[in-house]
Amino acid sequence: MNILIINAGSSSLKYQLIDMQDESVRAKGQVERIGIEGSNLKQKVGGLEYQIIAPMKNHIEAIEHMLKALTDSEKGAVKSMDEIGAVGHRVLHGGADFTKSMIIDDKVMDAIRACIPLGPLHNPANIMGIEACQKVMPNTPMVAVFDTAFHQTMPAESYLYGIPMEYYERLKIRRYGFHGTSHRYVSKRAADFLGVDAQKGYRMITCHLGNGSSICAVKDGKCFDTSMGLTPLEGVLMGTRSGSVDPAALQFIMNSDNISVDEMLTILNKKSGLLGISGKSSDMRDIDRMADEGDERCIMARNILVHTIKKFVGAYAAEMGGVDAIVFTAGIGENNNALRERIMDGFEYLGAKLDKEKNKGRGEMIISTDDSKVKILVIPTNEELAIARDTLALVSK
Amino acid sequence: MNILIINAGSSSLKYQLIDMQDESVRAKGQVERIGIEGSNLKQKVGGLEYQIIAPMKNHIEAIEHMLKALTDSEKGAVKSMDEIGAVGHRVLHGGADFTKSMIIDDKVMDAIRACIPLGPLHNPANIMGIEACQKVMPNTPMVAVFDTAFHQTMPAESYLYGIPMEYYERLKIRRYGFHGTSHRYVSKRAADFLGVDAQKGYRMITCHLGNGSSICAVKDGKCFDTSMGLTPLEGVLMGTRSGSVDPAALQFIMNSDNISVDEMLTILNKKSGLLGISGKSSDMRDIDRMADEGDERCIMARNILVHTIKKFVGAYAAEMGGVDAIVFTAGIGENNNALRERIMDGFEYLGAKLDKEKNKGRGEMIISTDDSKVKILVIPTNEELAIARDTLALVSK
Repeated sequence: MNILIINAGSSSLKYQLIDMQDESVRAKGQVERIGIEGSNLKQKVGGLEYQIIAPMKNHIEAIEHMLKALTDSEKGAVKSMDEIGAVGHRVLHGGADFTKSMIIDDKVMDAIRACIPLGPLHNPANIMGIEACQKVMPNTPMVAVFDTAFHQTMPAESYLYGIPMEYYERLKIRRYGFHGTSHRYVSKRAADFLGVDAQKGYRMITCHLGNGSSICAVKDGKCFDTSMGLTPLEGVLMGTRSGSVDPAALQFIMNSDNISVDEMLTILNKKSGLLGISGKSSDMRDIDRMADEGDERCIMARNILVHTIKKFVGAYAAEMGGVDAIVFTAGIGENNNALRERIMDGFEYLGAKLDKEKNKGRGEMIISTDDSKVKILVIPTNEELAIARDTLALVSK
Repeated sequence: MNILIINAGSSSLKYQLIDMQDESVRAKGQVERIGIEGSNLKQKVGGLEYQIIAPMKNHIEAIEHMLKALTDSEKGAVKSMDEIGAVGHRVLHGGADFTKSMIIDDKVMDAIRACIPLGPLHNPANIMGIEACQKVMPNTPMVAVFDTAFHQTMPAESYLYGIPMEYYERLKIRRYGFHGTSHRYVSKRAADFLGVDAQKGYRMITCHLGNGSSICAVKDGKCFDTSMGLTPLEGVLMGTRSGSVDPAALQFIMNSDNISVDEMLTILNKKSGLLGISGKSSDMRDIDRMADEGDERCIMARNILVHTIKKFVGAYAAEMGGVDAIVFTAGIGENNNALRERIMDGFEYLGAKLDKEKNKGRGEMIISTDDSKVKILVIPTNEELAIARDTLALVSK
């Protein structure tokens, strides 16, 4: 069966068509600037590139163009829409309602809508993507895969904040965590790769380091704690997000500069992180290059990034009473071996010894020394494949 | 020399008179409800109790009453004010200007005033205390001892937040840390007690757990990181303070309930923590009692407290590449052996093994097993003595 994976943003849409026979990617594409002048679609099928610039005033038109591209007789991947057996949708926020992926029906749609206050930027876009697909492919089964679902196994001491319980009960304010599909995928894959039974007391720390970053404590194959919180702002330093900050700093800045809380949060989400400290770039490749050239602010941004990641790795080892494996994934985690070396420096006390030569390799690999008690790994993440597998499993039932 | 130690709050004032010959406490007292109906003073000198209820409309009148009590012919500690050689004042916020205690002169007073925006509740009260003493004892030398000073050795990656650098440069927003006098005192005392040279690569984690709590990473005898931040709100769960929270939770609550940032911060400072979660008490003794009786909210509050402390201990071990000693101090840290047992449970991976029998003792003691690689200690804090020593050292110069 071919499964179409949709990741819809407010003005963009990424997609993959995966053949579940061999889990190969048959097509990969993205639509940008939906509803904005200059809407365009780019698709790759094998070596063939399909590209158009055309007005797409909403997600329905974007999805119509996507289907035209996928079924293009020359550069497409399939002959007709009938060859698409199901659609898997990435949905950011499932609140506390969804602990696993779900076949989309009216009840599920209502619940996704009910989570809009918790994911005000992403959930409406995810809903537009689903509704557009339903309109254009009314007979194809659809599945929602939630970024938050994997984290729903956290114990209360991990997910409750130290604020009046009323806010949890009335406003559902708690730690939800994100990147769940990635943490689930890499933690499972790492266990398989190591040949260990992750369900039996195995303790893993997965570091998803990309433009957005989160760290996850995985115990017995389940999420025990994670660094992102109510929203994807909390936790480690990110490209443009601050990570954790003294809440009183918001009061101080808002009162000093006479700005609203919404303006404050925009600054913390969009102008902070590597960008805010360096004043130059949110991209770790730029930061690395300039830091290596001696730029002090970029050196500082890198140091803070390493520092905050180390803190979470240490904290999660403490929560789980030690750790058996540390896994790096996502853009920075998979590709930035120098950063991995900086992060793992000094973790010998945990029994984690990096093999600096192995660490220079690429792809799925163990990068700890043979005598390291704690295994250190790189596992490339593949959220699309994880979504496709969930979708297949649900529609095959 | 007798040294008077003053800890002035907005409507209260605690004091001790310490004889530096043998560092004994000659008198101990407190004034409450300054400027409020029902002002009163209580003092103990040996077994003698002095108590009055009298109108005290400001700190000057409170200090006049204090001097009257100290020099009382029957229940006082000294014959006249001349027997008080110097006064040491606890000052909350020294900003980045003060890395150590200072003889108070006009310049120092200006700098303490300049830190009012950083310590809006405490610094004005500390200033009132100093000015009242200067008025009443114009010829006695005075010293300011800052809660923030010990933490000024933190490296930038510990003290900078992931926010635009502009806020650090323009508004001085950074991690300052508090309880510095306590962390300095207990870390030094622990090293002396263990007979180790703390200056040479020794790594200690000091846990000051009281109504306000903070954890400190001490490397080479200097502060390397600490859990409180710009203000004493950040870090672990406290009696009424939330500790760290996703900054976006503030936006969510403020917009949902239409409250201002000042109202929000009052909730996070005064109605959160153990009180907010339990809905019953901010006092750990109450929480323990009710938790032991099966109250679910109190069990939860205790679990979260233990969880957040564990995280910081683990994080600081990671930052320092391991740890040699873990020290407990302050009200909860010194007296709550059951909580210490809960916190230290599962730290065997660090080489830290608690001796459950020793842990039931009291006073200054080692509570780790003989074969524990990491020493675990209880060191009763004594901020007043630390202030007195600093004061003596400075006025003796």
